[in-house]
Amino acid sequence: MEYIGVNFKDKFEKFSDLWMPRIVSQFNNYHIKLVKVKGEFTWHNHTDTDEFFLVLDGSLDIHFRDGKVKLDPGEMFVVPKGMEHKPSAEKECHILLIEPAGTINTGNIVNAMTVQENIWI
Amino acid sequence: MEYIGVNFKDKFEKFSDLWMPRIVSQFNNYHIKLVKVKGEFTWHNHTDTDEFFLVLDGSLDIHFRDGKVKLDPGEMFVVPKGMEHKPSAEKECHILLIEPAGTINTGNIVNAMTVQENIWI
Repeated sequence: MEYIGVNFKDKFEKFSDLWMPRIVSQFNNYHIKLVKVKGEFTWHNHTDTDEFFLVLDGSLDIHFRDGKVKLDPGEMFVVPKGMEHKPSAEKECHILLIEPAGTINTGNIVNAMTVQENIWI
Repeated sequence: MEYIGVNFKDKFEKFSDLWMPRIVSQFNNYHIKLVKVKGEFTWHNHTDTDEFFLVLDGSLDIHFRDGKVKLDPGEMFVVPKGMEHKPSAEKECHILLIEPAGTINTGNIVNAMTVQENIWI
């Protein structure tokens, strides 16, 4: 039997909308998500989970109330549970997120950027 | 405050031994590990967890009893809990693994390739 891996480049070619996570895999109760981002997201936090960010293409800033981290391709950061953060990117940036299944992208905030559905590709 | 991400390339420059995972970060109860591999690993399985593989450099085969998956850079695969597998790489390959803290690299098998320690870099 030939098993097939998940190719991130192939997956990113399947969608173009921003801030709209696509689930590409699951391990245990965690979802692996790909997201295209550009501009500013919403300040929010996740009260019950850390959040894993890995930049695959482009450059991402994650702002905190007392500073920020800048991530380039091949760089990752874990935002601790409960820590307010606001991702932003000047140019389109492609990132991989890992978080528990059911985690809402805007955490404790509900607004126009909130995505309730689980979209697999 | 300036926060710092984990740069995989910088981390890989800090070690050269094969099949010896280095922990670079943690989220919730999961460890993010970098590993350099070459040659064949041990057939094993993890009875209580799925295992996340992402290839960052080189090419990795993960053999199963009924087939295999071949992963190139930017490709990932989740080995399901309990599924026997044997990673191998013809040339040196750099991978990222995610698994629960305390997961033993050789799973249900203990041999010369077993790493008991948690080595952070």
